Amino acid sequence: MKEFARKQRDENRIVGLVPTMGALHQGHLSLIKQARLQCSSVVASIFVNPTQFSPSEDFAKYPRNLPADTQKLENAGVQCSFLPEAQEIYPQNYSTYVNVVGLSERLEGRIRPGHFRGVSTVVMKLLQIVQPQFAYFGRKDAQQATIISRMAKDLNLDGEIVVCPIEREADGLALSSRNVYLQGIDRQSATVLHRALQAARLLLLHGTPDALSLQTAMHRVLSEESRAKIDYAEIVDAQTFEPLTHINRKAYVLVAAKFGETRLLDNMLVDFKDNGEMTTEL
Amino acid sequence: MKEFARKQRDENRIVGLVPTMGALHQGHLSLIKQARLQCSSVVASIFVNPTQFSPSEDFAKYPRNLPADTQKLENAGVQCSFLPEAQEIYPQNYSTYVNVVGLSERLEGRIRPGHFRGVSTVVMKLLQIVQPQFAYFGRKDAQQATIISRMAKDLNLDGEIVVCPIEREADGLALSSRNVYLQGIDRQSATVLHRALQAARLLLLHGTPDALSLQTAMHRVLSEESRAKIDYAEIVDAQTFEPLTHINRKAYVLVAAKFGETRLLDNMLVDFKDNGEMTTEL
Repeated sequence: MKEFARKQRDENRIVGLVPTMGALHQGHLSLIKQARLQCSSVVASIFVNPTQFSPSEDFAKYPRNLPADTQKLENAGVQCSFLPEAQEIYPQNYSTYVNVVGLSERLEGRIRPGHFRGVSTVVMKLLQIVQPQFAYFGRKDAQQATIISRMAKDLNLDGEIVVCPIEREADGLALSSRNVYLQGIDRQSATVLHRALQAARLLLLHGTPDALSLQTAMHRVLSEESRAKIDYAEIVDAQTFEPLTHINRKAYVLVAAKFGETRLLDNMLVDFKDNGEMTTEL
Repeated sequence: MKEFARKQRDENRIVGLVPTMGALHQGHLSLIKQARLQCSSVVASIFVNPTQFSPSEDFAKYPRNLPADTQKLENAGVQCSFLPEAQEIYPQNYSTYVNVVGLSERLEGRIRPGHFRGVSTVVMKLLQIVQPQFAYFGRKDAQQATIISRMAKDLNLDGEIVVCPIEREADGLALSSRNVYLQGIDRQSATVLHRALQAARLLLLHGTPDALSLQTAMHRVLSEESRAKIDYAEIVDAQTFEPLTHINRKAYVLVAAKFGETRLLDNMLVDFKDNGEMTTEL
C-alpha cells in the first residue's frame, strides 16, 4: 500500500483516502464521490478495527461482506481498495496509541471508553501508510470527525481532513452500517432521531437559541417513541464538544439512542454566516 | 520548517533530523556527524519540551543557551536549525498525545510518570513536520530510543530511527546536558555509573550471564560511592524493557542514580553475533 501510494505521489497525482469498516452504503459512496471530485487517485480502505470495540460490543458480529464491498468500491471508481488484515495493522508487540484527550472522553467516549483511542490510532496509521492529501469522513459520526481533525492539526499532519454531509433515507434516517441490525418496528422507530433534530431546528429557526429549550423539545419527541432508549440529546461546541447553554457559535446538536440492541447516532450542524445569520444542516 | 523540508525532498535530498533540547555537547555533535554521513540535508531542532517534564522537575532551570547552541549547529554544518516556540508546538486547545504503552511505564517511566508520553508526542510532531528519511537519537537514553523506534514502527512512519553510540568523557562519564549541574565532588562520584557497568561487563566476559550476579556486582560498586543515590541497576530485554533473569538475547544493562539533585543515566548494550558470540558496547 505504501509503495502504491508513493508511486501515485511521485506521478503527481492527488491522493485521497476514504477509510471505512466496510458494510458499505450510500453514505460511504458519497465520500468516495467527493474524493473523486478532488483527487486523481482515490484509496478506500476496509478494516473492521478491533481496538475501537470494547469487549461487550459488536466487533464479532459487525456486518462484513467483503466480496460485495470490493465490488461496490470498484463500481464507485476507486483506484485502490486497501484491505489489510488485523495482524498487519496490529502485529505482535504492538504498543502505540494516539489519544485526543478531553474530546475523546465526552459523550460517545463516556459511553464507549477507549473507543476513540482505537479510532484515532487506526486512522493515524492509515494516514501514515497512504499519506493522502485529503481524507474523508462522514459528519454522521461528528465526534469522530472532530477528533480526527484535531489529531491531524495537533500532530502537524500534511493531509486535510474533509468532513462530508450526512446521507439519509427518504424518511430521514441517517445512513449507518448498523441500520441493517434494525428489525421490523425498530426501523420505523429509528426515524425519531431525525424528528427530534427537526424539532430542535424548528425552535432555532424561531429564535430560541438556548440549549435547554432544544433539549426539552428533543426529549419530548424522543419520549413519544417507546422503543427508543435515549443515551443523550446534547448541544455542544463544534470544536471542543463541551456543552453549550446558548448557541452563539458553531455547534452540534447530537442525539444517540438504542433501538433494541442497536445504537444509532444522528446530529445537526449549526453554524453562523459572516453576517451573523444562523444556518442549520441536517 | 515544513516548507523547507518539502523543498529539500523535492530536490531529492536525503533529509536527516537530529532532535535536541539544546545545551549541546559532543554527544549531540556526534549525532549530527552521523547524520551528515547519511544525509544531504540535516535539520537539527532545539526545543525544551515542557510536556516531558513533571511539575517537580527541572524544566524551568534546564540549561538553555540558544546563541551558543545555534553557533555550534552552524559550525557542525547543519543545513537548518529548527527552533520552535512552545506556543507553536502546543497551541491553544492542544489535545493529542502519542503513548507507547508498557515500554513507557517501566524504569524511567515509573520514576517519571508521563515523561515518555511527552517525549513520544513531541518526537512524533517533529517527525511529521520534517518528514526525515533518518532521525538520530543517542543510546545514552536507551529507553527513549527504544520507545521512539517502537512508535515509528507501530505507526507506520516512513523514516528510519538511527540509534547512535554513547559519547563519554575521558574518565567514562556519559555525556549529558545535565552534567553541567554536577558540583565539585559529584562530578567525580558520577563516574561510578560507568564503573558499575564495567563491573557487569567483566562478569559477562567471564561467562556469568545471569542478571542477579550482574546486579549484585553493580550494586556493590555503586554502594561504595556514598554520594550516589541509586534508582535502579537492571538488565532488560532490549525490545520490551522487561527484566531478564538470564542474558541470552539483545539486552540493556541500565543504571540510574542521583548525585545531589542531578539524576544521571548510563547503560551497556549486550548483543549476540550470528555465531552466538556475545558483544558488549559501553
